Amino acid sequence: MLVSAELEGLVIVLVATRNPLNIGAAARAMSNFGFSQLRVVNPYEAAFREARSAVGASEVLVKAREYNSVADAICDCTLVIGTTAARGRQLFQPLWSLQQGGRLICKGLKAQSRAALLFGSEKRGLSNEDLSHCHWLLRIPTREEHGSMNLGQAVAVCLYEIARTAGRVKPVEKPRPARAGEVEAITRRLLEALTASGYVKPRSAASTEERIRRMVRRLSIPASDAEVWMGILRQILWKLRSGSLTDSQ
Amino acid sequence: MLVSAELEGLVIVLVATRNPLNIGAAARAMSNFGFSQLRVVNPYEAAFREARSAVGASEVLVKAREYNSVADAICDCTLVIGTTAARGRQLFQPLWSLQQGGRLICKGLKAQSRAALLFGSEKRGLSNEDLSHCHWLLRIPTREEHGSMNLGQAVAVCLYEIARTAGRVKPVEKPRPARAGEVEAITRRLLEALTASGYVKPRSAASTEERIRRMVRRLSIPASDAEVWMGILRQILWKLRSGSLTDSQ
Repeated sequence: MLVSAELEGLVIVLVATRNPLNIGAAARAMSNFGFSQLRVVNPYEAAFREARSAVGASEVLVKAREYNSVADAICDCTLVIGTTAARGRQLFQPLWSLQQGGRLICKGLKAQSRAALLFGSEKRGLSNEDLSHCHWLLRIPTREEHGSMNLGQAVAVCLYEIARTAGRVKPVEKPRPARAGEVEAITRRLLEALTASGYVKPRSAASTEERIRRMVRRLSIPASDAEVWMGILRQILWKLRSGSLTDSQ
Repeated sequence: MLVSAELEGLVIVLVATRNPLNIGAAARAMSNFGFSQLRVVNPYEAAFREARSAVGASEVLVKAREYNSVADAICDCTLVIGTTAARGRQLFQPLWSLQQGGRLICKGLKAQSRAALLFGSEKRGLSNEDLSHCHWLLRIPTREEHGSMNLGQAVAVCLYEIARTAGRVKPVEKPRPARAGEVEAITRRLLEALTASGYVKPRSAASTEERIRRMVRRLSIPASDAEVWMGILRQILWKLRSGSLTDSQ
């Protein structure tokens, strides 16, 4: 069994949730299964404040935190997973079933990773930009003909499976991966370098940025290397910029 | 994998549900995981009709049927399971975790049993009278400090687990058990016999009736024996009554 301190390592992130009842339902399922860290990104029209001020709001809800972007909400996490119904949509990351993915999440928590599990809005799910922050994606095995689940129920089923699996996972020894905030800083520096070098146009399509972001996630940069990579990119960027100044003279 | 015709053998029974949103949520989870038979018993103030007439109500909801008693709703089932948070409450039947219980349900469905899974009202769960119709009880392994789940989420988690387990269950050869309607008819006849014999008082406590009902469920009467048992009890009852007429003369 994972000790409760390890389950605390899983952060549930609700992105652009519209219905306050669903935020409350997610918090309730978290409390049922022993998870406590709820973060919400841009909830729809004060849905978050309404849910939090509801009579009998759980401790999870009261302690929940609000963010303006996915990047901010997952900044301190080392493993970021997006949930998707995966229907009629091109996906650019590995897709695991809940059963397989639950096992990977538990292994991460055992290794003291802080993992984030993202859920999108009721209507549209997670955007491609949201998904580009993720290391891999997770799908609940629902019926082909009716795949899209209610948000509160999807959270409950995922947390049930993770708590269920947690009991059977052995600890692993792996280097601690860099936090999402560090990885995103590297991504931004790389994008600047690619823009400065002319590889991407200054006002290029968002899809290019998302592609680069996913590529960097696939590197699994260890925490101990993050600062070195930042230094390398800073140096390249400085050179590119001073070079272009020279060219334009 | 259970073929979908086998999953059809599981009937979800919602007893005294108060909130139409929860009926809708249960129907949605059923559709997500491939179940189709929804029955509701005495839903609260037309909650059922409101849920059924909601825009976009699923096929499951439209096809759902309404009953006036648990006994009627489970009449054609051979295996009846009650769900309970099992906190601060004396239970009189075997209690299985969802994981163990899910396996037993799948084995039953493989053997072509029709199984009923009962969920009680949001506020009070299933009553002792409701539970006395059950062969055994099932509990979702939630946290000690916060065990009570939202109804729609509880349905989703149970059906996820049953669909998940369904793929790994081998068929079994067992005599078909009697239907709940047949078992209840035997129970009623036995209660009449016990009253006529003076074992129970004509206006005895409901708890005695519930105790007898649970005892009869523990017998696992095969379908092929049900008629014989009815005959035996009818005969005893006839003798008891004609005897008492003689005595009173």
